Amino acid sequence: MAGELGAKAMAMIADLARHTDEPGRLTRLYLSPAHQACAEATAGLMRNAGLAVSMDPLGTVVGRREGPAPGAKTLLVGSHIDSVVNAGIYDGPLGVVCGILAADVLRGEELPFALEVLAFGDEENVRFPTSLASSSALAGDFKPEWLDGEDADGVTLREALLAFGGDPERIGEISRDPAGTLGYLEVHIEQGPVLEAKDLSVGVVTAINGATRSRCTVTGMAGHAGTVPMGMRADALAAAAEMVSLVEAAGAKARDAVATVGVLEVSPGALNVIPAEARFTLDIRAPDDAVRAALVEEIVSGCAAIAARRGVGFAEARFMDQAATAMDESLIRALETGAGRAGYDAIRLPSGAGHDAVATARLCPSAMLFVRCEGGISHNPAEAITAADAEAAVRTLVEAIRAIARG
Amino acid sequence: MAGELGAKAMAMIADLARHTDEPGRLTRLYLSPAHQACAEATAGLMRNAGLAVSMDPLGTVVGRREGPAPGAKTLLVGSHIDSVVNAGIYDGPLGVVCGILAADVLRGEELPFALEVLAFGDEENVRFPTSLASSSALAGDFKPEWLDGEDADGVTLREALLAFGGDPERIGEISRDPAGTLGYLEVHIEQGPVLEAKDLSVGVVTAINGATRSRCTVTGMAGHAGTVPMGMRADALAAAAEMVSLVEAAGAKARDAVATVGVLEVSPGALNVIPAEARFTLDIRAPDDAVRAALVEEIVSGCAAIAARRGVGFAEARFMDQAATAMDESLIRALETGAGRAGYDAIRLPSGAGHDAVATARLCPSAMLFVRCEGGISHNPAEAITAADAEAAVRTLVEAIRAIARG
Repeated sequence: MAGELGAKAMAMIADLARHTDEPGRLTRLYLSPAHQACAEATAGLMRNAGLAVSMDPLGTVVGRREGPAPGAKTLLVGSHIDSVVNAGIYDGPLGVVCGILAADVLRGEELPFALEVLAFGDEENVRFPTSLASSSALAGDFKPEWLDGEDADGVTLREALLAFGGDPERIGEISRDPAGTLGYLEVHIEQGPVLEAKDLSVGVVTAINGATRSRCTVTGMAGHAGTVPMGMRADALAAAAEMVSLVEAAGAKARDAVATVGVLEVSPGALNVIPAEARFTLDIRAPDDAVRAALVEEIVSGCAAIAARRGVGFAEARFMDQAATAMDESLIRALETGAGRAGYDAIRLPSGAGHDAVATARLCPSAMLFVRCEGGISHNPAEAITAADAEAAVRTLVEAIRAIARG
Repeated sequence: MAGELGAKAMAMIADLARHTDEPGRLTRLYLSPAHQACAEATAGLMRNAGLAVSMDPLGTVVGRREGPAPGAKTLLVGSHIDSVVNAGIYDGPLGVVCGILAADVLRGEELPFALEVLAFGDEENVRFPTSLASSSALAGDFKPEWLDGEDADGVTLREALLAFGGDPERIGEISRDPAGTLGYLEVHIEQGPVLEAKDLSVGVVTAINGATRSRCTVTGMAGHAGTVPMGMRADALAAAAEMVSLVEAAGAKARDAVATVGVLEVSPGALNVIPAEARFTLDIRAPDDAVRAALVEEIVSGCAAIAARRGVGFAEARFMDQAATAMDESLIRALETGAGRAGYDAIRLPSGAGHDAVATARLCPSAMLFVRCEGGISHNPAEAITAADAEAAVRTLVEAIRAIARG
């Protein structure tokens, strides 16, 4: 049921969406003019919610409400305001706006901690070769070599940061003291179809999936499609097809995991020639690293066995092996309690995509609230949520912060 | 075992291979200067074998030995002297040379029929949009619209024919009287690996495979490879992979058939996106049309069933359905008898590729003798046969003609 908070959230998100680097569609890359304008607008929204606003040396907008005493810990709530090219308007801004509205709702209430709302600028890693630069800096993990990375026009991150008004020399100061940081909460659209299928407004993230990525090559022997009998073939595509089926079956069997072949190419790729080579990609993700490791092993050894049985070659070149990031159990419970108090059922689910919470989890307990989005569609102008679900997100977040305050 | 005939055949083939349109590799397209030079060289070889040489209005070189009486029937022996681009030297010329050498061997012997050796000019259908133009004309099947077909430079077949010294107006005269034509024999390299695997020099063709060709499209739904659970996917590639496996298994089960997926393309084709569409080709061939029809039905209905079970779309667009050409049983037996008398074992096997015998079979009983080639490789400069196998081919052909003469 949509109420005033949901309507406010939708209006604020629509307002931020006006800031784009490309007319007619939303593209808001890190440190671009549109990012600058959006950061200023975000600062305005924060001030309206009674927060003291500053900008950190990497351009993150920080809205702070002080704690009851100088030594009080800080609870962080955030998400990002940069976007992919031709983006949807909810991916990122929803979480920032929910944080601002929650701070507004809680303005008159006593809290035993300081509260900060963060609007990160570099979550999508589109413009520069970085990885969650803004939130990584919070955890002290900003890599100095990122400053020399260039965008498509040859502009370095250092140059862009100086032009934006940031300060490459002071990035070290962004890092927070773990002892003084209570935790990090992030609201985000699900970017998947699970909540819609379950008819739920919100869900609580258990872990952000680890991921393994490989490029595989199957090497058979070309031949005339008319003259080489079936029993004398070393058909690279027929072998690869069996491997794709194995990937799908193994992925479906493993708990909460996904395994995808998104690319498959065949050489020589002629109608009347038996394929000599097939190249495909593997993208295997799971919230549990042991599950993922076992799944990768099952798939790779299974592919090798298929190749051996068929007398074709098989090679796997792995280029990513990223551990999963578990969310904090006590913050997960706080979000579940919050949802319950706000009147919503919430399931637990893993996150298949990466988020700033991957970086903050290296600093402090972190957790995420997912919000249903239409058709699971994201990174697309068709991205959509309802005002009722935005209402659910804000109210759940408010109740979760109250639950944390109660301890 | 190689003897004089094998050595002669290899020398004659090497001699004809000197005539090419491209320096450094063999390319001899229909009605090109190299074809003209090769036709003249072929005419010379025929004259040396005691044959009376003429050229028909489409440029086919005809070497004739008259029959014992004016009303005697004619036995045709032939193959082609045009080539693909960057060709091997045996595909075509082997059959012409075997015919010439057989005529030479038989020169002093009485035969109850006239004997003609034919060197067709347009078997590969590379330069113009034709289909076995030279041999089809023999069967009265030359299509007048072929004369207006253009090569890559915009030259029509009519223009090229006039420049070559042919006569577009007299093509109808090429057609033979079925009643006066005893049969057609063609020696050709196998272009496949079966004889090599069986360690045999020669084999007798049972039928030239019929072929069905289609383009298939599988339509699923794109999605984020990290966020869409396995059970909620409509993965077009996973469905296509199951179909490729079905094609292979069904093809292997059907008698003497082959079924190939040579092309498979995936959209959008990104590592982290579930495939929305997969497009693949089908090439299904068999010597028996009923076997092929049943196989096509099994594959297409099986693919449709896979699609229905998975909730993805499936469409098949057929663009070729070509009947098989059965070889004549009595000429098959003559070739088998010939091989036996010459001292060779010969198996029966289907031909996966098309040949001039497809066209001649519409005129008269036709049969083919396949000769082992190295690795089954053809349409490639690496094409190779041994002198011993060339010897086997000539001697088998001579003995087959003698067997036919005996009746």
